[in-house]
Amino acid sequence: MKLWQKNTASLKEVEQFTVGRDREFDQQMARQDVLGNMAHAIMLEEIGLLTTDEKEQLLAELKQIYAVAANGELLIGEGIEDIHSQVEFLLTQALGDTGKKIHSARSRNDQVLVDLKLFLRDEIQALVEVVQPFFELLQAQSEKYKDHLLPGYTHLQLAMPSSFGLWFGAYAESMVDDLTTLQAAYEVVNKNPLGSAAGYGSSFPIKRQRTTELLGFAQLNHNVVYAQMGRGKAERIVAMALANLADTLAKLSMDACLYLNQNFGFISFPPELTTGSSIMPHKKNPDVFELIRSHGNRIKALPNEIMLMTTNLPSGYHRDLQLLKEHLFPAFSTLKDCFNMAGLMLSQIEIRPNLLHDEKYKYLFSVEEVNRLVLEGVPFRDAYRQVGLAIESGNYQYQTELRHTHEGSIGNLCTDQIKESMEAVLSRFNFSTVNAAVEQLLR
Amino acid sequence: MKLWQKNTASLKEVEQFTVGRDREFDQQMARQDVLGNMAHAIMLEEIGLLTTDEKEQLLAELKQIYAVAANGELLIGEGIEDIHSQVEFLLTQALGDTGKKIHSARSRNDQVLVDLKLFLRDEIQALVEVVQPFFELLQAQSEKYKDHLLPGYTHLQLAMPSSFGLWFGAYAESMVDDLTTLQAAYEVVNKNPLGSAAGYGSSFPIKRQRTTELLGFAQLNHNVVYAQMGRGKAERIVAMALANLADTLAKLSMDACLYLNQNFGFISFPPELTTGSSIMPHKKNPDVFELIRSHGNRIKALPNEIMLMTTNLPSGYHRDLQLLKEHLFPAFSTLKDCFNMAGLMLSQIEIRPNLLHDEKYKYLFSVEEVNRLVLEGVPFRDAYRQVGLAIESGNYQYQTELRHTHEGSIGNLCTDQIKESMEAVLSRFNFSTVNAAVEQLLR
Amino acid sequence: MKLWQKNTASLKEVEQFTVGRDREFDQQMARQDVLGNMAHAIMLEEIGLLTTDEKEQLLAELKQIYAVAANGELLIGEGIEDIHSQVEFLLTQALGDTGKKIHSARSRNDQVLVDLKLFLRDEIQALVEVVQPFFELLQAQSEKYKDHLLPGYTHLQLAMPSSFGLWFGAYAESMVDDLTTLQAAYEVVNKNPLGSAAGYGSSFPIKRQRTTELLGFAQLNHNVVYAQMGRGKAERIVAMALANLADTLAKLSMDACLYLNQNFGFISFPPELTTGSSIMPHKKNPDVFELIRSHGNRIKALPNEIMLMTTNLPSGYHRDLQLLKEHLFPAFSTLKDCFNMAGLMLSQIEIRPNLLHDEKYKYLFSVEEVNRLVLEGVPFRDAYRQVGLAIESGNYQYQTELRHTHEGSIGNLCTDQIKESMEAVLSRFNFSTVNAAVEQLLR
Amino acid sequence: MKLWQKNTASLKEVEQFTVGRDREFDQQMARQDVLGNMAHAIMLEEIGLLTTDEKEQLLAELKQIYAVAANGELLIGEGIEDIHSQVEFLLTQALGDTGKKIHSARSRNDQVLVDLKLFLRDEIQALVEVVQPFFELLQAQSEKYKDHLLPGYTHLQLAMPSSFGLWFGAYAESMVDDLTTLQAAYEVVNKNPLGSAAGYGSSFPIKRQRTTELLGFAQLNHNVVYAQMGRGKAERIVAMALANLADTLAKLSMDACLYLNQNFGFISFPPELTTGSSIMPHKKNPDVFELIRSHGNRIKALPNEIMLMTTNLPSGYHRDLQLLKEHLFPAFSTLKDCFNMAGLMLSQIEIRPNLLHDEKYKYLFSVEEVNRLVLEGVPFRDAYRQVGLAIESGNYQYQTELRHTHEGSIGNLCTDQIKESMEAVLSRFNFSTVNAAVEQLLR
Repeated sequence: MKLWQKNTASLKEVEQFTVGRDREFDQQMARQDVLGNMAHAIMLEEIGLLTTDEKEQLLAELKQIYAVAANGELLIGEGIEDIHSQVEFLLTQALGDTGKKIHSARSRNDQVLVDLKLFLRDEIQALVEVVQPFFELLQAQSEKYKDHLLPGYTHLQLAMPSSFGLWFGAYAESMVDDLTTLQAAYEVVNKNPLGSAAGYGSSFPIKRQRTTELLGFAQLNHNVVYAQMGRGKAERIVAMALANLADTLAKLSMDACLYLNQNFGFISFPPELTTGSSIMPHKKNPDVFELIRSHGNRIKALPNEIMLMTTNLPSGYHRDLQLLKEHLFPAFSTLKDCFNMAGLMLSQIEIRPNLLHDEKYKYLFSVEEVNRLVLEGVPFRDAYRQVGLAIESGNYQYQTELRHTHEGSIGNLCTDQIKESMEAVLSRFNFSTVNAAVEQLLR
Repeated sequence: MKLWQKNTASLKEVEQFTVGRDREFDQQMARQDVLGNMAHAIMLEEIGLLTTDEKEQLLAELKQIYAVAANGELLIGEGIEDIHSQVEFLLTQALGDTGKKIHSARSRNDQVLVDLKLFLRDEIQALVEVVQPFFELLQAQSEKYKDHLLPGYTHLQLAMPSSFGLWFGAYAESMVDDLTTLQAAYEVVNKNPLGSAAGYGSSFPIKRQRTTELLGFAQLNHNVVYAQMGRGKAERIVAMALANLADTLAKLSMDACLYLNQNFGFISFPPELTTGSSIMPHKKNPDVFELIRSHGNRIKALPNEIMLMTTNLPSGYHRDLQLLKEHLFPAFSTLKDCFNMAGLMLSQIEIRPNLLHDEKYKYLFSVEEVNRLVLEGVPFRDAYRQVGLAIESGNYQYQTELRHTHEGSIGNLCTDQIKESMEAVLSRFNFSTVNAAVEQLLR
Repeated sequence: MKLWQKNTASLKEVEQFTVGRDREFDQQMARQDVLGNMAHAIMLEEIGLLTTDEKEQLLAELKQIYAVAANGELLIGEGIEDIHSQVEFLLTQALGDTGKKIHSARSRNDQVLVDLKLFLRDEIQALVEVVQPFFELLQAQSEKYKDHLLPGYTHLQLAMPSSFGLWFGAYAESMVDDLTTLQAAYEVVNKNPLGSAAGYGSSFPIKRQRTTELLGFAQLNHNVVYAQMGRGKAERIVAMALANLADTLAKLSMDACLYLNQNFGFISFPPELTTGSSIMPHKKNPDVFELIRSHGNRIKALPNEIMLMTTNLPSGYHRDLQLLKEHLFPAFSTLKDCFNMAGLMLSQIEIRPNLLHDEKYKYLFSVEEVNRLVLEGVPFRDAYRQVGLAIESGNYQYQTELRHTHEGSIGNLCTDQIKESMEAVLSRFNFSTVNAAVEQLLR
Repeated sequence: MKLWQKNTASLKEVEQFTVGRDREFDQQMARQDVLGNMAHAIMLEEIGLLTTDEKEQLLAELKQIYAVAANGELLIGEGIEDIHSQVEFLLTQALGDTGKKIHSARSRNDQVLVDLKLFLRDEIQALVEVVQPFFELLQAQSEKYKDHLLPGYTHLQLAMPSSFGLWFGAYAESMVDDLTTLQAAYEVVNKNPLGSAAGYGSSFPIKRQRTTELLGFAQLNHNVVYAQMGRGKAERIVAMALANLADTLAKLSMDACLYLNQNFGFISFPPELTTGSSIMPHKKNPDVFELIRSHGNRIKALPNEIMLMTTNLPSGYHRDLQLLKEHLFPAFSTLKDCFNMAGLMLSQIEIRPNLLHDEKYKYLFSVEEVNRLVLEGVPFRDAYRQVGLAIESGNYQYQTELRHTHEGSIGNLCTDQIKESMEAVLSRFNFSTVNAAVEQLLR
């Protein structure tokens, strides 16, 4: 049964092709679809399109459906096109004509839009809840290993002393900026498109501000044409923020693969976290990090994919948008998995001690020598030349004691300040307001 | 003279290849480089690495150089590698050894990082200053043409009545979300990397919080490894926000090209804003919109380009990053030009009146008929079937009077609410704080 | 059972994460894996690493496994990591130690490489077999509708008369160039990597030229380091060719959506090939074309995705490559579906007759008038000005009779020449040689 | 003077915006534009639209203009819109009305199309002429260093012995496949679009096959709608091939940067080919390779950029296409520079001898030990376990003598076979036929 069928049968092939894998992804928005229905029903009653009794029946039924959906058991039946039809089918089955009435004053486009917004909102929250402990792990490891020095490279050439304190801490701070972009994406997402109908509004006297409050949205997508235009755009902006997080993980993984390489040999992992080779018995391969890197790099391709799929489409709905779900939805769980696996790895990391005692790293300290001369009053350019000549002539001498004290340096990691920055970003998500509204709706 | 020359000559080809077009782009950061020098000098004096007299000499000289740079006249001399060397060269020329001392406790990487942040900060501000009047124009046109109806399409098929009020207003509201992402990018940019030296900090007792205040940054990039890691990342996040704005302009341009097409014929422009053909005397081509669309679509490719250029680079500086400026810097002026040209076009747009009086658009009103029946008590699915059958049998009748009253619909454009949303976003940029700090530094 | 297990258990989570969806995609290469085993076994016997009897036993068993695989019934068992292990497991189960011997002188990387090449080769052939009838359909429709004129647009502005003969024919010819790139990709693919072991060759005296012949490859990937480097690269080059075909289909779909739009109204389709709306009873939406466009645009993003996943990986195998299969493998069936659906649509297309009799298209003929004057001896620039002034003053007169006779024009579609070009490209694929070798192996 | 001006002035800003940087790129196609004019003039005479005398005058004048263009001195004058107008302006200045006549039976779109095809054809040839000696250098270095062993890595973990012979040879062979895709692109490019007019042909009895022969094209873009559709598409296909070459160079550069890193320390370069640091006197940075990598990765983004700029444009010309030149044209010279610089570096590379004598690489030989056992008759899986246990218990012993003899392995580099493959690809470009036609035209 398709909603738009009017006594003409469409070819089975056309149906198969147009539905595609959509039911599979639609099913993931089951809970959100029910919530949208509940808010719509409440509002319909308030404007007189439902009686109080009808509304109560619908809400009671919808709560039951929600419970099923929350268990992941709300399946789209054979011959039912999408999650919206499935919910309406269940309502009509239970309540007859009252069930039919819920579709008043809205369109399927409307429902997809609001479901997507609610779904993206939930997924962003779930992602943040995974990023947060990972950030804390990085900060803890940064403090734990703050005295473990590490060669710092520029141009992949030995440059200056670094530390594992700095290394872990850098990736922690990276996520502050990543979450800043995710928070902006959340702000774009957390606006209510419901009531835009097919993208041009309707003649029903609906109250969009009311469903906005009921669903806990921060505000409306006001203009109905823009509400529709937001499809593809919200997905793209979210994908961009995912790409930022993914890039941080991918870079960390590249570092880890390099540091595990035997020529570097800075870190190792317990054998159960690495894999072997079918032909080389001594191998301890960093497959987990390689796959995090690869997943991360794929997620980085997602914004561009969404762009290609939406570029130069005139305003108004196009069926093209249906396919945006297919790579975006799995990206959330993939990214969460990647954070969890990276957390598992980094929690078990083994740091090789006293790395910089090896004489091959002696030139790392040459800048220290230059600086020492400068602090004794030699102009920088002259000090630089002096140390350079000492190195060239083989007379270079150095001390391994470091006195880096400024903000963000080896001796002063600013762990607390970075934590404060993170908390400032996290507080702006304002998940509690959103969650309270949803709980209220379900009460 | 290259800073790193130590008595060995590099081949001319290598020099040419490695410098490439870099001086050209470096020159665009001249003002910012001088500001970074000023803040650094003030701080150096405070920690005792410059005498007060040396600082004063340096500041006086730097102010003069700034004035030259502000006129666009600070050129990088033949044989000088970059803007940092040029400024230092001028200081050393004027002040001798005192000029040399300014490079104490910092690295070229450092300088590039801070220059880039200051430059991006300025460019974002300049862009916002162009977006704002364009937004206002869209809002004004939305109000002016609020009663001009327009066919609304879904699937590019005639769907429901829309209006030019909605159309202009949608693009206005689109920029609220776009600027939300630009504001997040600004927040990422507006953090001070100065003091990270080559990406691993230094043994000088520098005060990074002090230069942060002097340069008006909202906070530090604390961790020095992250400060360096921010290169490429800040550019990518800014490019993503530019892509969002560009996409809005490109979509608007696609609509405009379609609406100007003779089969649609919804809008026209004065002849001086369109172009003709070398072979078809009757043509009035929308070249301006086609080029905005094309520029916009190119800018949308920029985040991906930056990603490809930085993917899988381990942490630490790589020379690869030098080339990121080449397509990013021009994107700002291109995008500003596109906003200005789109503004010119839309300010002169001519709207064809009474579009929906044409009988070919009669089915646009079918949903209205369905809704009318629903409001009279017919269940939606039945009303829908009834109108559908009337259309099929040729008995369809309709009224052109629209009663769309809900938020964001034809009769209720929410212009003020959209303006408020925009102002809320704009206020978060906090340009005045930044500008005040810079003015203070130059005083 | 994992091949690399050496008495240490890896955490279940690590295993789940690293295996991911790989078994699902590996299963699709079952037939190819068996073929690779057969060729390897024959060669091993020839160099004395298997006895003739062992070889015969292995081949007999492998043929049976092939039959199962050809029915799509060769499943990878619980706890078996990949298709290679599954096949080896079956051989060992049936033949004991003889089964184990087949892994001599090769590596899993090796097997993946050859399976991928064989798989891509098969998929390209299957794709070409779908493109070919679609090409023929386009040519047939081009001839059938050669006299049906159509407005031709430049800048989306009415420009000159075109025809459905030209329109269909253009897309036919487009596929000649697309297949030229696919044929180059096929040439890159159709080279034998087997024998590269883990990417550095081996000390076994294997005969790589022999397996090349047995598997019907046109030649070797000679250098073993390059054989491994070809992973990711072959996929990218194939994806580029898929993108070219996808772009042709997407552009055709964009045209179709526009032409079906009521303002154009050039074409229509039987109702069973279009879909309706949940709220607008009169709609006939071109969902099939919208989804072809969207699938096509997604496939166009694939080369970039593969690039991001492989960029800046040093030479040598990385586990990152595992994930390349996930979006590439489904792209083949999606693209084939798109060709089939586009074929279904275009075979049923209804062309609106006498389109250019409508007076609104009169200016399409203005160039004809200019040309008429030129053929009468008026210099072009003067003729152009003369017709332009006639249009401006309202005195423009025109004839609808067209005399386009040159190659590739409305009156001379060059259908045969385009067919010849296509056949020349098709003949270079040389599928028959490849297929004969495989049949010989299976005999 | 713009060709399409008909007594109405367009705003200066519109003109500036629409012309943009186009004249700069147009100028690069000056020689090609003249050639197109020559072929067109000859054909026009043959169909009676020019007298023999007019043709001779035009050809004589065009040869002079060609000579100016060949010196890079054909500048587009102030107020002249493009190269086509400039050439016609010069002809009209010299020959009066005869000069005007050359624009008969063609359109500006036509001219751009043919100029682009001729330009891309020339640039591909010039690129191949740079790739070829680079390929030969790689082969020579492969032979020179064939006995220099190198650790081979998988997962960036020490795996098996490799050699510089393999390493250089792999990149040589990589270019065979890259040029296979470039040759396909050349085939797409080397088809004549001239005569398609504005994309819909014309009523002039032009002979397109004749200009095809005169310009040395292998065949026609037959269908005129497809000839226009080829714009953007030809550029994309060429960009894809450039991306393949760029990727090979970028990967080689990544390897080089890693091998130069002190932890690897496999290679070095004379000091004049590396750069130093402003703060670290001991650095020898591989800036050349970093910039080749970065340029390469940017070029890899080009196909996607072109895709974004052309996606979902309906058939027919759009002004959007103008901007495609801006990043594509410079990509050719950048890529040639990169090949030249990579050649300079690799010709001066210094290989560290006896790398694998270092005991830290002993496990590289473990596979050899496994294979030795297998060749003695131990089943592979058992031999593998035996060596693995020896490693774990500290009893591992190994021999450094390698007996890799199969095709493509350390001891059998297949240099000649790879050279043959390259020559087979190169021969298909068939530059001599093209060059002979052009010389004939200019005689």
